[in-house]
Amino acid sequence: MKRIYYPLMLLCPGFLFAQDVDQAALAKIRKEGMENSKVKEIAMQLTDVSGPRLTNSPGFQRAADWSVKQLKDWGLKNAKLEEWGEFGKGWQVEKSYLAMTKPYYMPFIGIPKAWTAGTGGVVKGEVVVIDIQNEEDLKKYANGKLAGKIVLTKSAMDTDPTFKADAIRYTEEDLEKMTNSQPFGQGNFTPEQMERLRGARTFRNKVDSTMKSQKISLELSGRAGKHGTFFTSGGSSYRGDSPIAGPAFDMAPEHAGLITRLVESGIPVTLEAESATTFYDKKLTTGNVIAEISGSDPKLKDEIVMLGGHLDSWHSATGATDNAAGCTVMMEAVRILQAAGLKPKRTIRIALWSGEEQGLHGSRNYVKNTFGDPQTMKLLPAHEKLSAYYNIDNGTGRIRGIYLQGNEGPRAIFEKWLAPFSDIIDHPTITSRNTGGTDHQSFDALGLPGFQFIQDGIEYNTRTHHTNVDTYERLVMDDLKQMAVVVAAFVYNTAQLDQKIPRKELPKPRPATGMGR
Amino acid sequence: MKRIYYPLMLLCPGFLFAQDVDQAALAKIRKEGMENSKVKEIAMQLTDVSGPRLTNSPGFQRAADWSVKQLKDWGLKNAKLEEWGEFGKGWQVEKSYLAMTKPYYMPFIGIPKAWTAGTGGVVKGEVVVIDIQNEEDLKKYANGKLAGKIVLTKSAMDTDPTFKADAIRYTEEDLEKMTNSQPFGQGNFTPEQMERLRGARTFRNKVDSTMKSQKISLELSGRAGKHGTFFTSGGSSYRGDSPIAGPAFDMAPEHAGLITRLVESGIPVTLEAESATTFYDKKLTTGNVIAEISGSDPKLKDEIVMLGGHLDSWHSATGATDNAAGCTVMMEAVRILQAAGLKPKRTIRIALWSGEEQGLHGSRNYVKNTFGDPQTMKLLPAHEKLSAYYNIDNGTGRIRGIYLQGNEGPRAIFEKWLAPFSDIIDHPTITSRNTGGTDHQSFDALGLPGFQFIQDGIEYNTRTHHTNVDTYERLVMDDLKQMAVVVAAFVYNTAQLDQKIPRKELPKPRPATGMGR
Repeated sequence: MKRIYYPLMLLCPGFLFAQDVDQAALAKIRKEGMENSKVKEIAMQLTDVSGPRLTNSPGFQRAADWSVKQLKDWGLKNAKLEEWGEFGKGWQVEKSYLAMTKPYYMPFIGIPKAWTAGTGGVVKGEVVVIDIQNEEDLKKYANGKLAGKIVLTKSAMDTDPTFKADAIRYTEEDLEKMTNSQPFGQGNFTPEQMERLRGARTFRNKVDSTMKSQKISLELSGRAGKHGTFFTSGGSSYRGDSPIAGPAFDMAPEHAGLITRLVESGIPVTLEAESATTFYDKKLTTGNVIAEISGSDPKLKDEIVMLGGHLDSWHSATGATDNAAGCTVMMEAVRILQAAGLKPKRTIRIALWSGEEQGLHGSRNYVKNTFGDPQTMKLLPAHEKLSAYYNIDNGTGRIRGIYLQGNEGPRAIFEKWLAPFSDIIDHPTITSRNTGGTDHQSFDALGLPGFQFIQDGIEYNTRTHHTNVDTYERLVMDDLKQMAVVVAAFVYNTAQLDQKIPRKELPKPRPATGMGR
Repeated sequence: MKRIYYPLMLLCPGFLFAQDVDQAALAKIRKEGMENSKVKEIAMQLTDVSGPRLTNSPGFQRAADWSVKQLKDWGLKNAKLEEWGEFGKGWQVEKSYLAMTKPYYMPFIGIPKAWTAGTGGVVKGEVVVIDIQNEEDLKKYANGKLAGKIVLTKSAMDTDPTFKADAIRYTEEDLEKMTNSQPFGQGNFTPEQMERLRGARTFRNKVDSTMKSQKISLELSGRAGKHGTFFTSGGSSYRGDSPIAGPAFDMAPEHAGLITRLVESGIPVTLEAESATTFYDKKLTTGNVIAEISGSDPKLKDEIVMLGGHLDSWHSATGATDNAAGCTVMMEAVRILQAAGLKPKRTIRIALWSGEEQGLHGSRNYVKNTFGDPQTMKLLPAHEKLSAYYNIDNGTGRIRGIYLQGNEGPRAIFEKWLAPFSDIIDHPTITSRNTGGTDHQSFDALGLPGFQFIQDGIEYNTRTHHTNVDTYERLVMDDLKQMAVVVAAFVYNTAQLDQKIPRKELPKPRPATGMGR
């Protein structure tokens, strides 16, 4: 997640408040979205049919190819995979097996960490459990002492029973609090906290390189999750020039805990494991799926309204809520507009991003290539032409409102746009607050109006975000339907508005913080 | 679960109310249980160290051997594995691997169903998804049409987000309701419901035998659970003379759902799987772990107070809450009594049962061999000598009271015994209600006072009971401590009481219903 400081918001001109929404168009959008919804079909193509969608992997390519074709079939123009530059290596799992063989047999839940090498056949051996908290601990395991071993890094696990539900819907009280909260900037962390975070990261990197410098036969860790859910990510760099790390698995914390307790009480644990992985490094560049509904007003059709979500996912499941959900909603939104026969004045452009999970790469590079560079604030001509960008990337939960991202300008407009949906948005909410970790930030960083909707927190942090169980089952189809209708309306309204969406003051040039997600 | 009709309760004689509890003994019990608790160590031996404990499997044997030795080491007498008769085959998993290989690779969460054969190497092939709801459907798949295939039986899955917490503690209101509820008998089901249940079972058996009559290469089903949790049980009979069924896996419903959706939309799914299993059928008999603290009162030492829980578990995890928890509590309770140096008047006997999961076999046969036969109501001399049996088998949740099992006689006694624990039992509750599905029923069936405690519902039905994630992490050690102290007190009080615990009227002879768990 990139953290950005937001300058004071500008007030928007009052005349914008006057324009009424096109009720007939809204009615068509609703009818199409509610009665002829295709969210199930779209979501199934993106999840079940495409599979895990790590950027540059075959799964991502399947999803991108299908999306381009589908958008074309719905009559969108200029549908294509638009290259944005070098991402790095694609990668996928071809085999994953992990089990304890002594003191008794037990199959374990796990998966290779992204961009790690395979084991080259079955690896068998006793496990060494290590717990490196400081430099002293680190010394014990340096100098090749772990070479050839199967090594489990001990992790603390949350073993509390779940007295709080995994899924929530925001209450009125939650939303009131959100309404009254202010945009935050770097201030998420105090300088002391930032210092500590940097220190911790430096130490982690040191541990990591100490580990990698030895020829460990298999690295294991069970860092987070419970009840068969586990969280996963990368075990090495995806950069084109990075060396390939040895085999490593993320696994269920319960199974890591079993190994740890046995070994620490003096009972040897023997594992057998096999992983096979394929790197796709012949073509390191990648692209975003882009398509358009051409504007119909000669004076406004060069102006653009964008909507999007990221198409890439992690590799241990089919990335249903992160973020097939967002892509489904955005694709359904443009399908609705097409099927409803609406002719937007401005051009509507959908973008399904790649490389989001590794640092919003797809959207950042798209913005840089299209609108200008936030590091130098050298702007390109298209910067003037974008009205707004709308994003969905907080899971499957329905829309409850919108984050203004510190941009008070459009508040009254959005209030007017949310009002007709009071029957399907309980307690519609507009907050000045910003929210991070996803692609609207790439626009916001260049002073372009980029918005993420407020969504109910349906199991996102507890069960689905970067886990092995982020599957089609997690999608709440009624919520996806609602989101598509609301987004279609927002996008259409933006396309029809007399003016572009008001902007914040342009940010000052600033270098990247290196704290990319 | 065996369902039994309970006759009207008898009132207990008033003089029993008069005896005060021994406060000094209670203080010793509390001090030992709270300050020197061994629940962690016991639980770890039974779960992590022993492993899954299917009856007659090596894991069960490890747990039984350790328990006998540990009970001896604590100074209990007559500690042994007491044979009760023929259970059937032991069985364990030696290899478990399941993955999708087309349309893309994905490792699946699953485990062989108990008492199924291994695959004999890696099985690869396309999956056939079947959905048999009626005789018509069944015909489609009869006559060897599934021979040699990998067959997934379609299941409905609960895909709702979890808006209710997995774990609860009973509220005062919940307990009030329980207090006021009455014992139920066969009346759980109306005759019509019973008829429907029998019909459904007959059809299921027919489907089962149709499947088994063909040489299916691998059977799969994902019946219940979510987020990586799945429920498991047997795929064949454990009886000594039963034929061995072909390979079959229980798997995560999400992964079964993925296969089902792909196949139903015309996309072929190819799997690879391997299972290896071992049957232990040289010795079909098995036993319960039994040990005693000898009574110290010459007139009362022939009378017995029993406490127990079942030591066996299912095979996909280490059976922590079902029911290492109960065994841990009962072992800790007798350890506390020993360590506290208490000399009970009556003999206290602990029993850790086998074969509970397949129909309370260990406790039923123990009762039959020791106290008499509920089918004929021919009683043995020891029937007169048992004061009461206390059971724990509802997971890791702390004691909130006790089910009288329709026996109002001891209500006032138990009220007096619960009273000193008001600081560690919130809203202590006594309900006339019966509760089923576990070993106190074997005693109750013979008119012997058999009690199960009311326990908080910590993730038992949602996450742990018969699942792949019933591991050591699920145990709430503070709750186990509390339970051990309360049970130790109940058992000691029972041993010291002037009279035996009042009984219900003797039930009438009745044949088994065939509805065993």
